[in-house]
Amino acid sequence: MVAFKGVWTKDFWRAVTAEYLATLIFVFLGVGSTINWHAGTDNPPPADLVLISLCFGLSIATMVQCFGHISGGHINPAVTAAMVVTRKLSLAKGMFYVVAQCLGAITGAGILYMVTPAAVRGGFGVNDVSSSVSLGHGLVVEIIITFELVFTVFATCDPKRTDLGGSAALAIGVAVAIGHLFGIPYTGASMNPARSFGPAFIYWLGPILGGLLAAGLYEYLYCPDPDLKKRLKQVFQKDQSGRYKEVDAGDITIKPGSIDAEKAEKKDSYNDMGDVLSSE
Amino acid sequence: MVAFKGVWTKDFWRAVTAEYLATLIFVFLGVGSTINWHAGTDNPPPADLVLISLCFGLSIATMVQCFGHISGGHINPAVTAAMVVTRKLSLAKGMFYVVAQCLGAITGAGILYMVTPAAVRGGFGVNDVSSSVSLGHGLVVEIIITFELVFTVFATCDPKRTDLGGSAALAIGVAVAIGHLFGIPYTGASMNPARSFGPAFIYWLGPILGGLLAAGLYEYLYCPDPDLKKRLKQVFQKDQSGRYKEVDAGDITIKPGSIDAEKAEKKDSYNDMGDVLSSE
Amino acid sequence: MVAFKGVWTKDFWRAVTAEYLATLIFVFLGVGSTINWHAGTDNPPPADLVLISLCFGLSIATMVQCFGHISGGHINPAVTAAMVVTRKLSLAKGMFYVVAQCLGAITGAGILYMVTPAAVRGGFGVNDVSSSVSLGHGLVVEIIITFELVFTVFATCDPKRTDLGGSAALAIGVAVAIGHLFGIPYTGASMNPARSFGPAFIYWLGPILGGLLAAGLYEYLYCPDPDLKKRLKQVFQKDQSGRYKEVDAGDITIKPGSIDAEKAEKKDSYNDMGDVLSSE
Amino acid sequence: MVAFKGVWTKDFWRAVTAEYLATLIFVFLGVGSTINWHAGTDNPPPADLVLISLCFGLSIATMVQCFGHISGGHINPAVTAAMVVTRKLSLAKGMFYVVAQCLGAITGAGILYMVTPAAVRGGFGVNDVSSSVSLGHGLVVEIIITFELVFTVFATCDPKRTDLGGSAALAIGVAVAIGHLFGIPYTGASMNPARSFGPAFIYWLGPILGGLLAAGLYEYLYCPDPDLKKRLKQVFQKDQSGRYKEVDAGDITIKPGSIDAEKAEKKDSYNDMGDVLSSE
Repeated sequence: MVAFKGVWTKDFWRAVTAEYLATLIFVFLGVGSTINWHAGTDNPPPADLVLISLCFGLSIATMVQCFGHISGGHINPAVTAAMVVTRKLSLAKGMFYVVAQCLGAITGAGILYMVTPAAVRGGFGVNDVSSSVSLGHGLVVEIIITFELVFTVFATCDPKRTDLGGSAALAIGVAVAIGHLFGIPYTGASMNPARSFGPAFIYWLGPILGGLLAAGLYEYLYCPDPDLKKRLKQVFQKDQSGRYKEVDAGDITIKPGSIDAEKAEKKDSYNDMGDVLSSE
Repeated sequence: MVAFKGVWTKDFWRAVTAEYLATLIFVFLGVGSTINWHAGTDNPPPADLVLISLCFGLSIATMVQCFGHISGGHINPAVTAAMVVTRKLSLAKGMFYVVAQCLGAITGAGILYMVTPAAVRGGFGVNDVSSSVSLGHGLVVEIIITFELVFTVFATCDPKRTDLGGSAALAIGVAVAIGHLFGIPYTGASMNPARSFGPAFIYWLGPILGGLLAAGLYEYLYCPDPDLKKRLKQVFQKDQSGRYKEVDAGDITIKPGSIDAEKAEKKDSYNDMGDVLSSE
Repeated sequence: MVAFKGVWTKDFWRAVTAEYLATLIFVFLGVGSTINWHAGTDNPPPADLVLISLCFGLSIATMVQCFGHISGGHINPAVTAAMVVTRKLSLAKGMFYVVAQCLGAITGAGILYMVTPAAVRGGFGVNDVSSSVSLGHGLVVEIIITFELVFTVFATCDPKRTDLGGSAALAIGVAVAIGHLFGIPYTGASMNPARSFGPAFIYWLGPILGGLLAAGLYEYLYCPDPDLKKRLKQVFQKDQSGRYKEVDAGDITIKPGSIDAEKAEKKDSYNDMGDVLSSE
Repeated sequence: MVAFKGVWTKDFWRAVTAEYLATLIFVFLGVGSTINWHAGTDNPPPADLVLISLCFGLSIATMVQCFGHISGGHINPAVTAAMVVTRKLSLAKGMFYVVAQCLGAITGAGILYMVTPAAVRGGFGVNDVSSSVSLGHGLVVEIIITFELVFTVFATCDPKRTDLGGSAALAIGVAVAIGHLFGIPYTGASMNPARSFGPAFIYWLGPILGGLLAAGLYEYLYCPDPDLKKRLKQVFQKDQSGRYKEVDAGDITIKPGSIDAEKAEKKDSYNDMGDVLSSE
């Protein structure tokens, strides 16, 4: 597959990590600028859209300035997709780029979530179509502002043009800024799936991690299935040679029966609770 | 006529459609930034003039960056007129440019009208001389800020200059931005007939379309002239060969008498209503 | 005098009128952006310092972009003085530049005064040291921000530098903008004597013109000195040949006695008024 | 020591004084823009973060434009440290740079302190981690925004790059601006130890100077130790030849006993005061 040619070079991995780092910083700064620090006070002033737009736009400008010569400075799956479709980037490389962008956005949003006081996190910059704008209209808005952005990227990076002066990075940043100046009240002005994915993922990650944690603690610590516990004990039991015993994978497979048993127990306790409740 | 030389080439049509698209996006983003989303709330904050000015100015910068090498990036009938007068563009081409700009402005304003919630549309960014500024003074303001803009365009695109660095697109965008920073409270800062024409046209188009629709529904659906109905029926009646019958144009002409008759009917019903009302 | 060499050329006058026009537009836009249109309403919002700073800074950037290759784009007596002191401009040319800048500032401020509703004119952008800042401290502020501006002009226009990219006009405009972002609350951030002179002159011009008009109407129309009137009549009396009579300059000299007489009359009427007032 | 080679040249001292002057102006303008002039009024509007961010960012851009070819335009110990670590600047030169930056920041903050009315000085732009952000999180924020800044400096000044257009100074200024747009609510967005050191030093300097002044006046003017006074008198007494007498250093050493004696006196007077107070 020719598309993969050159993927496993050092330069390619430098480019992929550049996309990761650039999207991390972009999402960290941009989404961070949407935090309303007056939330919770009486009469909080409205969000400063100029601040948010300049922060997103100029952050893109700065990241393109920093990483443009390393990865091309996409920092946006929409740009990468457009590059792939126009055969400026192979599909395989593009997929690595998009994964790196999404991971960068998650990391940036995660660090931001950590350092931001819970009291002011609010909507945490998750893009959302305004309640007074229909989904279809929100789609129209996102199509036009992303069209404008990607057209600017292509027009600015066109090697055939000799009429352009000034900073390519700033021109692309300005295209991002106007999309935000216009579009924040409509859709939050994403223009960039990774930028939307990062903060939203936090709200996927949180419940999933919380659920797994709860399940794990319940099953293995507080109310473990005695059968399972015994087998796990055997697994982690060292033999005389000081090594962990080798066990058959089958041994630690939870038997349906044991779970059913526990289920029954739970059901009982639920029933008890139900009795209590209905007796009221 | 030498002025028409080269109009029917592919490059010329590319330029004309570029003007259409650039003006569409410019009007969509710029006029959209004037929407006051707090309209209807108590104590709405005043419009953020920095936001509006940056959105108009940087949108022009971005559109010139995108389309400057294709059409010259006028995006403004005032610039096109100045180019025609100084013989940098033929009158014929200039006329196509202006038409394309106006159509683009209408399309941009139309899409914006569609996606913007009715509750916040308000004045919809229609340029209007402030009620405390006389029309003559508004004219003075528009002359000076458009002078400043067109002078910047000519100075920036002067091929004889070698002293200029930086982005021509940004320099022109900045000239648009200062006109808005200064001029919005005076006249809304048009500087661009197409930008004013687009949203205003919506208010021509709306009533005209609404009127036509009302008239059409009334006449052809709810209270049709029986004579006319019959003739239309004949028109759309297929003959045995499966084709629509050919009819004389004269057949579907509404006869004055039939309308008078209907008018009389309407008058009667109004009178009836009047009776009801006066009996209260 | 070698300093005058080249003053009477066409290029020089083009440069002087460029300074006039650039300062006119700069003062018109910049001072206009300081108008508080909410004046007179309850709870007017504070002035938007970002708007004012960007308008002054980007207007200088635009004017330098427009006129830099014609006059050097000083638009500021402080810059012109610095150029003269460092022998980059002759003293004679510099004097013409400064006069042109002052006339431009007056014209710009005058047009602005005319088009701005009286209700919102307020302080009309006249620079004034804040009431809580001493004059000496205001002087320190103006020295530092003008130092920063003129240093930027020299560093940017240094022909020995090869390390600079981007727009010289924008770099100078940015230097003006930061002076305003910082300095408006201290001194109104002049950085430019002509910019301060223009609006202030309006308040010199107004009273002086008003006073002259009042004096003229009183003396020549309502209560003229009969002696003077007769002589003026003689001056404008055509002789038989159809030409105005030649008169000795001495003839229209006002004689001390006649004025004294009128003074006495005025004094009488003042006394009468005094009597009336005191009788109350 | 090779690291010192070239330190004592004229060019080096020009560079060091350039760092001093650039940091002075940067801190003066930037910290000055943080002053809340509405402090003390009812319902003061919140700080305008766009204003502050643009003032810091564009001040850096302007200073780099002014001094980039003289000293490299670091204006920031973090940048100088990064240059030293990557062997782009010798350690010795770097130390002079940092000292010059700190002195410049103190001078800038000092002048600003002097010209700013006491009523509005408030926190005086001293960087402080928000009370709702933990110190560790504040550290994370400062690390990321300073990383972003220094990366931009290196990417922009990389002599191997040929793909960059536009102004290097503006690109670096923009990197500072986005750090502020994002970071002010978290940590005040320092990104620059000298910028934080300047205003903070004022609050070290003030109490220390005030304390020294109080001690000096008390000891030498109001309640001097008679013994010490006599000896100082001898020191400043001219002898017959018109010169100040040479004295042994030992003569002006304060004897422990004399201070003890005074302490006792003070104690007495305190006791007297205590009696008065307790008698109430």
